[in-house]
Amino acid sequence: MPRETFCLRFDMPDPGDAAALRAAIASGRIARDGLRAVLLKTPGNGLTNDHTRTLATREVLAALGPGPAPMMLASGGTEGIAVPHIILLGEMAGGGQPGRGLAIGLGHGPSITPADTAGPAMSRAVAAAVAAAMRTAGVTDAADVVIALVKAPLPSPFAFGGTEEAFAALKGSARAAASLGAAAALGEIPWAQIGDGTTAALHGHRTLVAAGTDVTAPEALVIGQAPGWAGTLRAGATMLVDMLDAPGVAALLASLGLAATPQLTAADAVRLRAVITKGEMPALLRGDRPAALDDSDIHPNRHFRAALGGMIAALTGDGRIFLSGGAEAQTPPGGVLLAIIADTGQEAQE
Amino acid sequence: MPRETFCLRFDMPDPGDAAALRAAIASGRIARDGLRAVLLKTPGNGLTNDHTRTLATREVLAALGPGPAPMMLASGGTEGIAVPHIILLGEMAGGGQPGRGLAIGLGHGPSITPADTAGPAMSRAVAAAVAAAMRTAGVTDAADVVIALVKAPLPSPFAFGGTEEAFAALKGSARAAASLGAAAALGEIPWAQIGDGTTAALHGHRTLVAAGTDVTAPEALVIGQAPGWAGTLRAGATMLVDMLDAPGVAALLASLGLAATPQLTAADAVRLRAVITKGEMPALLRGDRPAALDDSDIHPNRHFRAALGGMIAALTGDGRIFLSGGAEAQTPPGGVLLAIIADTGQEAQE
Amino acid sequence: MPRETFCLRFDMPDPGDAAALRAAIASGRIARDGLRAVLLKTPGNGLTNDHTRTLATREVLAALGPGPAPMMLASGGTEGIAVPHIILLGEMAGGGQPGRGLAIGLGHGPSITPADTAGPAMSRAVAAAVAAAMRTAGVTDAADVVIALVKAPLPSPFAFGGTEEAFAALKGSARAAASLGAAAALGEIPWAQIGDGTTAALHGHRTLVAAGTDVTAPEALVIGQAPGWAGTLRAGATMLVDMLDAPGVAALLASLGLAATPQLTAADAVRLRAVITKGEMPALLRGDRPAALDDSDIHPNRHFRAALGGMIAALTGDGRIFLSGGAEAQTPPGGVLLAIIADTGQEAQE
Amino acid sequence: MPRETFCLRFDMPDPGDAAALRAAIASGRIARDGLRAVLLKTPGNGLTNDHTRTLATREVLAALGPGPAPMMLASGGTEGIAVPHIILLGEMAGGGQPGRGLAIGLGHGPSITPADTAGPAMSRAVAAAVAAAMRTAGVTDAADVVIALVKAPLPSPFAFGGTEEAFAALKGSARAAASLGAAAALGEIPWAQIGDGTTAALHGHRTLVAAGTDVTAPEALVIGQAPGWAGTLRAGATMLVDMLDAPGVAALLASLGLAATPQLTAADAVRLRAVITKGEMPALLRGDRPAALDDSDIHPNRHFRAALGGMIAALTGDGRIFLSGGAEAQTPPGGVLLAIIADTGQEAQE
Repeated sequence: MPRETFCLRFDMPDPGDAAALRAAIASGRIARDGLRAVLLKTPGNGLTNDHTRTLATREVLAALGPGPAPMMLASGGTEGIAVPHIILLGEMAGGGQPGRGLAIGLGHGPSITPADTAGPAMSRAVAAAVAAAMRTAGVTDAADVVIALVKAPLPSPFAFGGTEEAFAALKGSARAAASLGAAAALGEIPWAQIGDGTTAALHGHRTLVAAGTDVTAPEALVIGQAPGWAGTLRAGATMLVDMLDAPGVAALLASLGLAATPQLTAADAVRLRAVITKGEMPALLRGDRPAALDDSDIHPNRHFRAALGGMIAALTGDGRIFLSGGAEAQTPPGGVLLAIIADTGQEAQE
Repeated sequence: MPRETFCLRFDMPDPGDAAALRAAIASGRIARDGLRAVLLKTPGNGLTNDHTRTLATREVLAALGPGPAPMMLASGGTEGIAVPHIILLGEMAGGGQPGRGLAIGLGHGPSITPADTAGPAMSRAVAAAVAAAMRTAGVTDAADVVIALVKAPLPSPFAFGGTEEAFAALKGSARAAASLGAAAALGEIPWAQIGDGTTAALHGHRTLVAAGTDVTAPEALVIGQAPGWAGTLRAGATMLVDMLDAPGVAALLASLGLAATPQLTAADAVRLRAVITKGEMPALLRGDRPAALDDSDIHPNRHFRAALGGMIAALTGDGRIFLSGGAEAQTPPGGVLLAIIADTGQEAQE
Repeated sequence: MPRETFCLRFDMPDPGDAAALRAAIASGRIARDGLRAVLLKTPGNGLTNDHTRTLATREVLAALGPGPAPMMLASGGTEGIAVPHIILLGEMAGGGQPGRGLAIGLGHGPSITPADTAGPAMSRAVAAAVAAAMRTAGVTDAADVVIALVKAPLPSPFAFGGTEEAFAALKGSARAAASLGAAAALGEIPWAQIGDGTTAALHGHRTLVAAGTDVTAPEALVIGQAPGWAGTLRAGATMLVDMLDAPGVAALLASLGLAATPQLTAADAVRLRAVITKGEMPALLRGDRPAALDDSDIHPNRHFRAALGGMIAALTGDGRIFLSGGAEAQTPPGGVLLAIIADTGQEAQE
Repeated sequence: MPRETFCLRFDMPDPGDAAALRAAIASGRIARDGLRAVLLKTPGNGLTNDHTRTLATREVLAALGPGPAPMMLASGGTEGIAVPHIILLGEMAGGGQPGRGLAIGLGHGPSITPADTAGPAMSRAVAAAVAAAMRTAGVTDAADVVIALVKAPLPSPFAFGGTEEAFAALKGSARAAASLGAAAALGEIPWAQIGDGTTAALHGHRTLVAAGTDVTAPEALVIGQAPGWAGTLRAGATMLVDMLDAPGVAALLASLGLAATPQLTAADAVRLRAVITKGEMPALLRGDRPAALDDSDIHPNRHFRAALGGMIAALTGDGRIFLSGGAEAQTPPGGVLLAIIADTGQEAQE
């Protein structure tokens, strides 16, 4: 039997109550042993003191019960029209013919000490995780990787000492080092250019990094195409030019057979399985300095998620967007990484 | 010579510095005597303690210097991708042939006592202002009104006493009473239905109300079509079904000759003169309760403006949007009022 | 052997990590079977979307392990100098002579339906819980009650529907109804005056109410004096006139043998076991309207906790204060309820 | 006739309405020509986008009308129990016998370019302003200076570019450089130690710096004792050990003849003319890391002002406190600078 990727989505308005997930588990719909990653979009502020991530992670793990440990990618912040939800990614035995289908694989890298959080050891460890994930997925050519989702370890802010600003800065550096390591593994950047892992001008093109204090070693989920996988799911990713690049969103949707004119029909919208994006407020947007950058009451990431969610949902018509701020070395300045998984209704072909 | 409406837009990143406006005045570009209204989109929180509205209003009035008093419509809140800016609306001597062109008129109603802020006296006074504005614009048929912008008087929060919540509630009731009065003047609702001005189920369709403590009598600016007006500007308005109604935005743009597929070309985007919108977070959006409603750190209006700005700019490609929260009796539940003024490049016709 | 009240305090900077409590349990210091109540002061916003309360409650319950279910009183908000901490209250076998010592008792009332949350059924159920708690503590005269801590049930905000403001209002009404019920049980207010449980002019004098979605029936912990209890702990409570009533704090400390001139010595400060307070921003404070009431970016409760914590800690020199906002019917307008438990070093006397 | 310092205080709840000041001016109570400084405590967030400072500054200047330009020291943030108010400091012809009375003097330094904002040129320019202020006040011995209030120039955030964080950092460096310059002028630190103006370990002991974009050259107001000054006002200053140093506050009050046991009597409280303080949240407070440092929704300075205001008002009983955050190089780590001006009722003596 061929392998087949599954991608399930559940609403989770209360981070302490995975009721929809529990119901699905009870109904036997979920291939627990094949589960590889859970993405959690929780309703906190997405910043240092966002404990909704921890609460939802614990609740989901309790709901899932025993089985292989999935990568847990929790991102707080459902500003504006965004809907708190979780996405389950895994593999199951496929029912159709194997082809070049949507492939996924989870990989792990070696442990990172707190002192190495923002340096080359992080880059190397993430690269190892990505390479392992590609092998597991059966993706042999880096060009066949659509996107790599990376969980990077982070020391606890309570152990860290220093100000909230300093911790936020460390988190950013950790994400940057992780992204460059993944980019190297994907063949986007030679190791010689990476140096100490903090070169500001470099960035990956297909990597989303979340940093978390709940792991001590990096994990990576690679999503791509590979032979031997069946099913009707497809994934695509693109780098939006800026926060207003609606044409870029429409083009990505079109590549998956979904026409946004300007918005998907309801029939097409239900084909969406996961909409995943990463970016941050730019210093300049189409020539203007965003006023949001000078707002001392609301963090720029919260402005970003609220506005970008509105922009993307203009085309998809759906607030289930895994929006994440903190795009250090994951995008060019002002760019926004966007990946979409959809059910095309068409079986994978050779 | 025919009358002609002008609509000018200036960035104003600092509410204390109307530099771009001052430069335009110095260059003689502005018909000061014809100025009828200034819309100010300022970078505050748009809530009770948003003093950017007062600061910018004073700065703009100082920059304008002596001349007829325009209606000053200040709205705080440039969350997300929104750009602080001001819009000047007025009339000048037209150079072309008079036709059924874009017409504007400013009208004033009688004074309102603080005790009458939220009641039928407000509705009546606003209706008088709208009627006067229509007469001034030469709009004889209410069907020819595109939108009425209303400034409703409000007592000072410092004189008011009570909590911030109570003041916010009074502000909402004042806007509701004002909107119903305008709707009556526009023939949308019979007076008999309005009763005490607070009937929750009623709402206007073409009225945007801002409440301010800097006036004691309501003012209205009517924008419509009327014979005797020249020029290439046109205006349209629509009621979006919800915060994600991108097709509604596209249809309004199309009615002005601007194609959003999904976004305006740069050549079309520069034709935009004013994008004006009003609404608030709905209790349900496409079946989901917005998490933003449970956010005790950020007011729902701020979530609304950030997300709606992203949605609209997905189509227009421009952050210069006069976004305003507090839509009591101005929209149906969840609806969003949107008006656009654009330069079509085509002279008004008979 | 006489009964003896214990009152232990642990720091808990991370609501997801009860490390200090776990260490104490591991060391065998805690009489688990006698545990009656846990007060949790967590670092969230203390408002609708404060999930630190849920996270810390779950973490503490997991750390405690099996045993009788204590009342869990979680209150978010450690603004300013306040320190996140938990307080354990229970009884153990006393080592000394029984006297009129510090007595505690936990009581339960009947279940409340969501529809009854804010009405007389809540008052009656809370009164039953308080009466049961007095019996358990052996307090026969209501005059011997120092303070009653009440946990009132609340429907989930996710089940509730409506706006965050509406949910906050329901929460306030629930607290008011609960407080009046406790006041009746304590003989402060006759039932005939309570009527529908919402009479604005009435308030209790010795009741602190927290509303939570994690119970469906009210619970009460009564703290008082009763014969048959040993130990060196004493408790006192007072109603501060306003947020600046430092003399009232000093008088309460003095009644427990602690001299604040103006601040406790370090030797006296370590005698503090619990500092518990409840109140909210007043409409007027010594003749001035607090500017905090007009702050649309920060909720008044957060201003209150930050400032009151500073005021109290001026005298105690310690940020471990269980500060709680939302004082509906628990204080007169502007008043602040304050209770302190201290180790006097002197055994209870007959 | 001797010189005499006046110090007047007016409430100003609305930053756009200096009504109390206007009334005082109309009544002829204010020696306009002798006015040297206005301190404005406004109800904004006290951070980058706090426009209440600009609005109130313009309003006060308009109310004052023509006359010598005073130093305008605007500080936003009236969290907790703090009351928005303004303080006028100036000199007038004294009615009594000259003695060693309360002396003030205003001094100006040379202009600073934006590039020099955070460097040694700022230190030198501030030192020149302080020296000039001492001369004007007739204070010849630096030991007779109670406190120096410094206004340091800052480029506009709108001209600056970069993030809000970067601008906040520049502001901090500017304050540090200014404080060290004042400290040198006051003989606290030798110039040789100051070096590039950013040495983190150094700090002044009697200098409060506010940075503002409304000046291009530094200004300093020196408050001290000098012969030839009459009147009953006295000033004192102290460095509180930490945010909870109530004994330090009491000692300073006692030095001015005011007994806080623990709070001033109403009769003594009315003797207060100005309570001025500067500090910020410490990394550790009495052994605990303040949870406020990890709050991504509220800036640490807002936590600081709210809590410190509560602490100080515990002793003074009055919310009219000129609280200011951002204490770079003005205090030791965790320390808080506090200055008080009071009317002792006793004439200055030789």
